[in-house]
Formats: sequence, C-alpha cells, structure tokens
Amino acid sequence: MSKPILYSSWSSSCSSRVRIALALKKIDYEYHAVNLRTDEEQKDFALNNPAKKVPILKINGLTLTESMSIIEYLDEVYPNPPLLPKDPEARAHARAIAFHISSNIQPLQNLAICRKLEEIQKGYGIQWCHDVICRGFDALEQLLKLYSGRFCVGDRITIADLVLPSIVYNATEKYNVDMGPYPIISRIAAELGGIPEFEAAHPSRQPDAPKN
Amino acid sequence: MSKPILYSSWSSSCSSRVRIALALKKIDYEYHAVNLRTDEEQKDFALNNPAKKVPILKINGLTLTESMSIIEYLDEVYPNPPLLPKDPEARAHARAIAFHISSNIQPLQNLAICRKLEEIQKGYGIQWCHDVICRGFDALEQLLKLYSGRFCVGDRITIADLVLPSIVYNATEKYNVDMGPYPIISRIAAELGGIPEFEAAHPSRQPDAPKN
Repeated sequence: MSKPILYSSWSSSCSSRVRIALALKKIDYEYHAVNLRTDEEQKDFALNNPAKKVPILKINGLTLTESMSIIEYLDEVYPNPPLLPKDPEARAHARAIAFHISSNIQPLQNLAICRKLEEIQKGYGIQWCHDVICRGFDALEQLLKLYSGRFCVGDRITIADLVLPSIVYNATEKYNVDMGPYPIISRIAAELGGIPEFEAAHPSRQPDAPKN
Repeated sequence: MSKPILYSSWSSSCSSRVRIALALKKIDYEYHAVNLRTDEEQKDFALNNPAKKVPILKINGLTLTESMSIIEYLDEVYPNPPLLPKDPEARAHARAIAFHISSNIQPLQNLAICRKLEEIQKGYGIQWCHDVICRGFDALEQLLKLYSGRFCVGDRITIADLVLPSIVYNATEKYNVDMGPYPIISRIAAELGGIPEFEAAHPSRQPDAPKN
C-alpha cells in the first residue's frame, strides 16, 4: 500500500482534527497543502472531493471526506489508541461534545460566513463569529462540567478532544473571545496543547503555514 | 426500565432524524413536544440540555443530546436493523454523506440564522438559506452518484438516509429550491418517503404539528 495522503490546509479546523488523529494513531502520511484560492488547484481538488473542502484522506485505496467520518474510520481500522471509550454511554457523551463543536459552533463561525457578513455590514461578521462561539462555549462548559475528567470525557483522550483545540484557537486567535467564563474549556485546551501529537498538528507547525 | 422520552419539535430536522431511528429500531417512546418560545418550558428544557436544543433522548437512565450521537448510540445498543454498513469503507461513505448534510448544510440554513439575516436586510435570509442548500446539494448529488444504490449508500438504509428527508423538506417546503438539477437526491427522498417508519417521523405527523 502506498503512503496515505492528507489534503489539508494549515488553518482549517477540520483538517487539524484529522492531523491529530493520524498523529495519535502513528500513521505516517504525505501532507498535500491545498489553497482553494488558485483555480488549477481547485479543479484538481474538486476531482477528489465534490464538497471542495479539506480535509481529504487517501488511504488504503479509498478517498475519504468529512473529518468526523474520517476519524471514525481511522478508529475502526486502526483501533490503537482508541478514540472512543468502550462504554456506549461514555461514547455517546464523547460524540455529543464532538458534534456540538463540529455542527453547532464550527460551521457558523468559519471564514466564508465571516467574510460574507462583513460584506453586508462592516464589523458584523467578526461580531457574529464571536457571539456564535460564546453561545456555543456556554453550552460546552456545562457539558464538560458533567462529563470531563483530565480530558473532555473522563481521563482518556477521545474524539471530543480532537475537536476542541481548533475551536479554542479560533476563539482566542481570531475572534478575541474572553475565556474567563470558560475555565474547564481553557484547562483542557491547555492540557491538550502540551501533548506532542497535538503540538505537531497545530496550525503554526504545518508546512503551508505562513512564515513569520 | 421506564419508557424512553424524546424531547422533540415537529419541525426540527435534528429531531426528525432521531424519530426515524427510533421507528426503524421499533423502540416505543413518549413524545414530549418542546416549544422554545415559552420561558417556563425553556427553563425546564435547559436543565436537561445545556445546548438548549432538541432533540434530547432520555433512555436507559441516560440523557442523550446531539442527534448524530444519539443515532450512533441507538445503533450500538439496539443493533437491529443496523444503520451502518458492516464494511468500514461503506460506513465511512455513509457517515460522510450524513455529516455533509448535518454539518455543512443544515446548520447554515436553520431558522435562527434565517431570521437574523432577514433583520439585517429583508429577503437576504431566505436567499442565503436557498443558496446554502443549493451549494450543499451540488456536492451531495456528486457524492450520491459515487455511492448510492436504492438508498444513499448501496441498497440498504443507513445513517445517511435518516438525515436526507428533512433537508429535502426544507429545500422544497421552505426555500423553494428547484430540484431539477438533483435527480438522485429527489429519487432517494421519494423512495424514503414511502417507507412507513419515515412516514411516521414526518413533521406533519407529529402531535405538536400545526393543524390545517
């Protein structure tokens, strides 16, 4: 089998989730940076993914799309270390937290929606994204109060932890969200930030990240 | 064990997915209609779900949130009929289609976002939701061209089929989307619409649906 290829963008939240999963599973892969702003690249990219979105993972002869689906696939085919708890109850809570971030927060604060709203009214896009994250974090903090231990659900890394760092990155780096009201989110994000596999998946560490 | 309780709203896409899953699994449950417009109900509801969103499923002593997580839980604990294929490749495609709808399309065309945009500019919210669905369906039609059989992925019902009907309902009933360019989506939605468990989960059939 040839080496897996990850089509990724350094700043994409959805790409970062898959980068973390691949790192935790110790799956070596080729990084293919995608910049959707150039036409040729977009054409080539669309052939692989009708949704024209990163990430795409080519692995075991398959072309896989949608970060949450890719993570579930990796966990089924490469079970160690597991990214879901054994118990159905804990699995449900881990997935609920992951989907709360990936469906309720992330899509409503992405760059495309922010730019579109800025076009209608200057400053509105930034405010919108800020408010979406705050509302989402209000709920997330409550969920974590119920289920977290050292990590989002108990004391082992789960799919929920793979989804957390990029939304906290957006909150703090892009939309100036005050993290004061979110002590559990902040603590877990800091904890995850010190783990080598999470560090390696950080936006700033990707080959296509802007050089300072 | 007491009978499961589903907190649902007749018009909620996310609730409808879980209603279909419960019907297919032949799990009898109590329907608790939630109307988030009344304060008392909202308070009671928030105690069960920090995200203040339907659906919530109380089952086996647990309080479960997030439709996609609830469906995965039901499929793990009540495996018949399965809602995911056996093969990891087909599972990945079924989940990818489900997540494409639940994360890329649904959150960007919900009622809250539509109203907010209508406030900024009359007519803008409706147009936004229309366009989000069209862009999403362009991609979905391509995905279905690759993976569909009688249903979204092959010839058996999967999690992808649970997510399809409500977005087609929104497209046609709320946002006047021309389905001409989407023959595969239309064919599968029609096929699903004739299945008793899907019929029973239809918005118009819920106890809290408006009477005509």
